[in-house]
This record gives sequence, C-alpha cells and structure tokens, in this order.
Amino acid sequence: MSKVTIVEVGARDGLQNEKVLLSPEIRLEFAEKLAGAGIRKIELGAFVSPQWVPQMRGSTELMKMALARKTSGKSSLKDSELSALVPNLRGMQDAIDAGVKDVAIFASASEAFAKKNINCSIEESFGRFAKVMELAKSNGSRVRGYLSMCFGCPFEGEVPEGRVVRLVKRLRDLGVYEVSIGDTIGVANPMQVHRLVSKLIDAVGEDFLAMHFHDTRGTALANIHSSLQLGIRVFDSSLGGLGGCPYAPAATGNVATEDVVYMLHGMGYKTGIDLAQLIAINQWITEKVQHELPSRVGRAGLPKLLPIGT
Amino acid sequence: MSKVTIVEVGARDGLQNEKVLLSPEIRLEFAEKLAGAGIRKIELGAFVSPQWVPQMRGSTELMKMALARKTSGKSSLKDSELSALVPNLRGMQDAIDAGVKDVAIFASASEAFAKKNINCSIEESFGRFAKVMELAKSNGSRVRGYLSMCFGCPFEGEVPEGRVVRLVKRLRDLGVYEVSIGDTIGVANPMQVHRLVSKLIDAVGEDFLAMHFHDTRGTALANIHSSLQLGIRVFDSSLGGLGGCPYAPAATGNVATEDVVYMLHGMGYKTGIDLAQLIAINQWITEKVQHELPSRVGRAGLPKLLPIGT
Repeated sequence: MSKVTIVEVGARDGLQNEKVLLSPEIRLEFAEKLAGAGIRKIELGAFVSPQWVPQMRGSTELMKMALARKTSGKSSLKDSELSALVPNLRGMQDAIDAGVKDVAIFASASEAFAKKNINCSIEESFGRFAKVMELAKSNGSRVRGYLSMCFGCPFEGEVPEGRVVRLVKRLRDLGVYEVSIGDTIGVANPMQVHRLVSKLIDAVGEDFLAMHFHDTRGTALANIHSSLQLGIRVFDSSLGGLGGCPYAPAATGNVATEDVVYMLHGMGYKTGIDLAQLIAINQWITEKVQHELPSRVGRAGLPKLLPIGT
Repeated sequence: MSKVTIVEVGARDGLQNEKVLLSPEIRLEFAEKLAGAGIRKIELGAFVSPQWVPQMRGSTELMKMALARKTSGKSSLKDSELSALVPNLRGMQDAIDAGVKDVAIFASASEAFAKKNINCSIEESFGRFAKVMELAKSNGSRVRGYLSMCFGCPFEGEVPEGRVVRLVKRLRDLGVYEVSIGDTIGVANPMQVHRLVSKLIDAVGEDFLAMHFHDTRGTALANIHSSLQLGIRVFDSSLGGLGGCPYAPAATGNVATEDVVYMLHGMGYKTGIDLAQLIAINQWITEKVQHELPSRVGRAGLPKLLPIGT
C-alpha cells in the first residue's frame, strides 16, 4: 500500500504543449535520463499527424530507437515501459509497425471537447476505439485509456459525474487495463476529487484507476492527497511541469513530477525515484525548451538538512 | 463549520520579502483593495527598524492613516481588522503610540533560527515576549502569536514536534489569542501536518490555531486540505503569493490567497471573499512590485462556465 507508481508524461503530453520542437534524439536522451532516475513508466511518443502536432514528429523513429536500446539491456531504459499515444486505427497500425506494445487511447468526458478535439461525438469516438482495441488485441498490445475533462470543461462547464463513471466502465469493457482520469484544465478541488473518485472506485475498483491532474490553479497536490486517501496509487505527472495549459497561455499544465515525488516521499510513500536526479533533469530540459519550468521543487531545490525519501 | 477565515499577510510578510519598496500610500491603497474584496483580517505594518527592514518603513504613518480611514466608516477598511508585527518592547510601544490595537509577536520553534533571526535563544525570546505581553495587556491590545519553522529549519533540520507543542502552550499561557503555525521554508507534507496538528489540537484545541504555509515546494494547498480535515478554520496567505522565499531566491514563499480561496470555495467553504476582485488586485500589485507573481489562479484566471463560490 505504500508503493506509488508515477507515469511520466512529460515527453509526450508535456512536450506536445511546448513551443520549441525537440528532435527524436533529444527526446530519447530525455527518456533515458527519466528512466535513469528510476521512472518505470514513460509515455514517449504519439502516432499523430505531424501537421497537427509537430512536437511529436519522428515518433516512429524515436520509439524504434528507444525500444532497441531497451532490449539491448545496456540502456537505463531496460526496466521501463515505453508507451505511445494512438488517436485512431492508423496510429495503432503505426505503433504496431514500430514495435510498440504499450499504447494509450484518449477519450473525452465532455461532448463539446470531443467535438473540438477529435471532431466527433463521444459515441462516435467509442466506435473508433472499438476498432483500435480490436487491432491492439490481435497484436497483443497493452492499452491504457485516458479520459479527459472529468472535472469540468472550458467549452461545456460542469461535466456530470454519472457520465464519467459510465465512460470509465465502457473503457474497461473495451479492454483497457487502466483509465487515467484527467483534470485537463486544472479546475478540480479535493472535495470534488473525493466525490468522483469514490464513485469510480465503487464502479471499477481503485486498482483500475490512475489520476492525471493539472496544476493550473495550484490544487494538483491537494487532489493527489485526496486520491491517496481513497487508495489510488498511480499518478501521471510531467517533469518540471512541462507543457503549460493550452487553454490559458500563462498558466501551468501537468503537475510536476518533482513536486509529486517530493510530497509522496515526505508522506512515506515509495516511488523508487531519485529526487535529486529529477532536479538535474529539470535543469537539463529547461535549457532545451528555453524557459523556466513551473515545478516548485525544481525552483526551490531540495530542503537542506532534511530527509528526502526514496 | 463551513466558514474559513483568511488572514492576509501580503502587505507585511509578502512585501517585506520584495525587492521594490512601496510607499505607505501604495500600501494603504493595497489594504483598501484587499478589504474591498472582503478580507476581514489584514496584517499591514511592522514596527521594526527601517534599517533592517526598509520595506516596512513608514509603518507608523501607514497604520495611522489606515486606522483613521477605518474609523471614518467611509473606507472599505471599516469592517477589517488591521494588525502590525511588533518584534520587541519598543515595537509594542510604537504600536500603542500609533493607536494600533491588533499586534502580532514572532517566535521561533528552531533554536538555530532564533539565534540567526532575533539574535537570542528561544528561552530569551520568551523573556522578551513576556514584557511585550505585559505592555499589550495594559493597553488592551489583542496579540496574535506566530511560531516559525514548525516543520523543519534550514539551519537545524528536523524540528521536534514536542518542542512545537510546548512553545504553542507557552504562547497561550502568555495570553496570545491564536498561534499561527508556520512552515516558513515550505517543506511540510500533508502527513506531517496531520501528525503535528493532531498533537496541537490535543494540547490547545483547534480554535486556538491558524496555519501559515509557504508554497515553496508546491504542498501548501495539500497541507491546507490536511488541516481542514482536522477542523482548522484559519489560514494565513499572501495576495498573489507576494514575498518569495528568503532562503531560496527563485522559489515561492507564502501560499497565494487566490489559490487558497479558489480551493476553499470549490470545496464549499465560505470566506466572504470575491475571487474575481483578488485577481484584479493581483494585476494591480504585479505592476507595483514589477514582476509576475507565483499565484497559479492569478496566472490562469477563473475557470470558464464553472461556479467559483463566495
């Protein structure tokens, strides 16, 4: 119960929202550093059109290089799961062609956001997912599900909790092994998290759930605290808080991995991650993306004379 | 149980750690805006040597102007308590001379920090406080106590919880009406908060306690969440997160009032504070201190189409 898994999304969800485009080689080096710091789940690529998401250009090349290094056994990547986002059947086929076994699909709990982001209704998107899942199964892939806008939507406002619960069950029935519940615009508070996550646990159990918080309004760690109290043990985060928020240009996006790990270690949870190394990676990637990152721990550094946990 | 009191410390603890020096007139305008937004407790001045703390220069003039406006009944300040920090007997006399009835004294739970900050041992500082309290009582002043470094110290490392509990009891026995428990360097986590605050509540009761968190490592709102769960209903915060952290120049200091109020309202707590006005004040004071402030809500703004509470 004291072990917590971090799913590092900085190299995908993070970089995808950065202005600077990084080469597959730099992104590979990023992944190796993350794995070297002890992160065991790394989302690294996205099989999307480079016309739409230029930041993810070269994901095929990147995933091939990374998987080759992983299987060589000589890279820090050897013990880490490397995954990629697949938006549709074509992306799934690309993933298979690149030898990627761990993929993720991206669903929306907001009808308005589904329309804007993937240009179809929620119902239509599940039709697509069914085909993706079929291909994934025939290839023996492991599929993770994201469900975005679970706590509110900038285009729709409040999102009914009953709808979130129904969609998580549908993703489970499709065969994903875990659903990551997204507060995509960082509006959630710990009470709301307690309420929704309690319902989700009743429906699918805590082991099926991960939480994906954005720190846009500073509440991400409080929301993680609330989730921990209910038994959730998997959290998505982004090194340095890479990525920003596409709906509020000056604002913070994904919660920073350093901040999550700092809090978890202080509370006695084990992540297997070396916090000092995360801070060094923050300094390295800050130079690459050419701006200071929002992580509080990244800026403040480790506390002097106090234990920092493991 | 659903009412929470915010003690706004931006005009004192915040501005005291800013590089730019603001005139008493600007600080008065700041206080009027804060009171106009519904903040009922504002720490505004410090009767300290302007040689040591130039940011607080003109506190006598400022407090006199502010109290005159308050009693005039025509200012937004009319319903707000305006307090000042008094470090010693001379400061207490200055407060009395300026007509200030609400004062605060500043104690340390770290022996090393007491030596560095006020140049005496904890024991010696309590000797001074006894004299300050005597003068305060004879003047009918209300005295709040701060206890700093309760969760760790940059010069001493871990601070024994038993010592924190003893010092809070001593402050109570001296006659302060409330003690604000400070995480002065922003190292605390929600588990540690739960442990220490539980002991403090056993010793002095929740109504005697306020929590003063810094967001240096991003945990402030999680720590407030943990405190709320134990029944704490008074929190110190600083508009915009004004102030920074004197021990880590790039880092955040006081938790931002906007962020605290956003979370509290979302959770259904009532503060009587208008969040939209806080964001407007953030923009105003940002110009005065000449740098962007760390408040997440200040940067992101209010969520669209979602309720923001009162």
